[in-house]
Amino acid sequence: MPANRHFTLVRRPQGMPVPEDFCLVEAPTPALGEGQFLLRNHYASLDPAIRGWMDDVPSYLPPIRLGDPVRATTIGRIAESRHPDFPVGAWASGLNAIEDYSLCVGGGFTTLVDADAVPSVTNYLSSVGAIGLTAYFALLDVGKPKAGETVLVTGAAGAVGSLVGQIARMQGCRTVGIAGGPAKCERLIRDYGYDAAIDYRGKSYDELVAAIREAAPNGVDVHFENVGGDILDAALLSLNHKGRVVLCGLISEYNDAPHGARNLWQLIVQSATIEGFLVKDYIPRFAEAIGPLAQWVRDGRLRMDEHVDKGIENALPAFLRLFEGSNDGKMILQIAD
Amino acid sequence: MPANRHFTLVRRPQGMPVPEDFCLVEAPTPALGEGQFLLRNHYASLDPAIRGWMDDVPSYLPPIRLGDPVRATTIGRIAESRHPDFPVGAWASGLNAIEDYSLCVGGGFTTLVDADAVPSVTNYLSSVGAIGLTAYFALLDVGKPKAGETVLVTGAAGAVGSLVGQIARMQGCRTVGIAGGPAKCERLIRDYGYDAAIDYRGKSYDELVAAIREAAPNGVDVHFENVGGDILDAALLSLNHKGRVVLCGLISEYNDAPHGARNLWQLIVQSATIEGFLVKDYIPRFAEAIGPLAQWVRDGRLRMDEHVDKGIENALPAFLRLFEGSNDGKMILQIAD
Repeated sequence: MPANRHFTLVRRPQGMPVPEDFCLVEAPTPALGEGQFLLRNHYASLDPAIRGWMDDVPSYLPPIRLGDPVRATTIGRIAESRHPDFPVGAWASGLNAIEDYSLCVGGGFTTLVDADAVPSVTNYLSSVGAIGLTAYFALLDVGKPKAGETVLVTGAAGAVGSLVGQIARMQGCRTVGIAGGPAKCERLIRDYGYDAAIDYRGKSYDELVAAIREAAPNGVDVHFENVGGDILDAALLSLNHKGRVVLCGLISEYNDAPHGARNLWQLIVQSATIEGFLVKDYIPRFAEAIGPLAQWVRDGRLRMDEHVDKGIENALPAFLRLFEGSNDGKMILQIAD
Repeated sequence: MPANRHFTLVRRPQGMPVPEDFCLVEAPTPALGEGQFLLRNHYASLDPAIRGWMDDVPSYLPPIRLGDPVRATTIGRIAESRHPDFPVGAWASGLNAIEDYSLCVGGGFTTLVDADAVPSVTNYLSSVGAIGLTAYFALLDVGKPKAGETVLVTGAAGAVGSLVGQIARMQGCRTVGIAGGPAKCERLIRDYGYDAAIDYRGKSYDELVAAIREAAPNGVDVHFENVGGDILDAALLSLNHKGRVVLCGLISEYNDAPHGARNLWQLIVQSATIEGFLVKDYIPRFAEAIGPLAQWVRDGRLRMDEHVDKGIENALPAFLRLFEGSNDGKMILQIAD
């Protein structure tokens, strides 16, 4: 068995994570117990939520313990197994960690995946994985868009946002995306079929409000929020009566003191709703979404760009791209070929 | 016809309203058109929402125009009528203005009221009026409390809050109220049946968080928000999974720059919801609530304190009590005996 490298959290980050918060540790892989299997991780999904798990605050998952490898969804091939449902050689995915090998049990997020059902096995970390499932259920189940309505998406060029725009369009909605920089805005229109794109960079709050009003002249029925801060406040001002805000992420607030949502009065004025979304609530319903998502990917109706950085030693700079906005699509770390 | 005095908005308030923003204007009452009637206002309801209508911002109602009397729900007796459903001498209520006489048409909020069905006709501005209807529908329809759940209420000694606590208790919930000062907190327990009371005055944010955790050891299932600011942020930290925040008011933010809700991430972590409430959405369903509310009032099961200040010339100091917190119960201005 080759060495097992772990990308380990050794100090809780203050604000943006820095190299001193982590250590690449080599340790032997423990022997398998009954019902366990060993996954050779090929790819890890780098997601904004991981930043939250690094903090010592109560949340939907326990904080990553100091000295533990950084938690992440991974996909790989089973290298050894003492679990009858997880045979050696099969592809599997689960909530594991950024490390060469993960010791796994079944259940929860851990499942076998059918590598032949999608163009690339990495799709199980993007369009057909937690990202795709988030976009699917958060938009359709929480946002409940109806044909003819306007759907506004922040972080629209990001992993979830790019899918949300495409799925909303399939529902017959007008889609408006907000992203940072002209290159991303061009991708919104060209690659993800957004009807309108707004570049938030260099815009004051008032300019952002005006840009949303112009791009959504009939108001916003569903606002899909990945960012928070000024952008959320600006979006709230365009909400229609009975508007639905799907709160999927607040990436602008994960490293800094939160700006705070100052336009909540709009919820009263418009009888509108903000609903937080966590994909783990939908585990029992994953199967109903994976079928259509995989089909849309195969048909070319659902495009998802993947930004793959190579090497476990690059875990931190790859992760930080999410907060710099320097990734082009779903951020994935390749751990093995 | 005696003189008709109007409490008129002449300048838009900056922050807290001041006397120079208003003028008491005497003007003749116009002749009635067909389908109109003239209401001799006896009482006007002073509500925090009126402050919002004084600003020149888009909202669920148009701003009060400069030179117009300040909009308010009033109750009075019909003095003249050219409307077949509104006979002279009957009591009626509607969204009118702070003035001696209001020219009315039917429809919307305007209705005849049965003065004999309640102990005092002012109850139609409190427990059996928009306040009672707000508490009833916002708690039961939006909050959806279930027996055994914990309901947290801010502004709990206020008009809406005092009713919400009592109605939640009738549903078998544990009720925790937050109010300012020991006298109000005593009333929460003694008069409104709250299981626990928290005095926010003199408490830091961290102390508020700790006090809520202590008073709601099983977490908060329904949070009924009338205040906003630090108090909302503290409450969000105690929300349970699938918690419901009923956003009924944000009185702490109406005169000042909003503090902003900084703990919205809790909505994601708890798959929780904030829903804004406007009673006018429920106009078609008012009848289903007025029956039970009037019955509870007659039975003594629903207590509502009313704070009546006399004289249209006292409209502004009476209104400002809402923001100082110096009122003891629903704030009502008596315009005529």
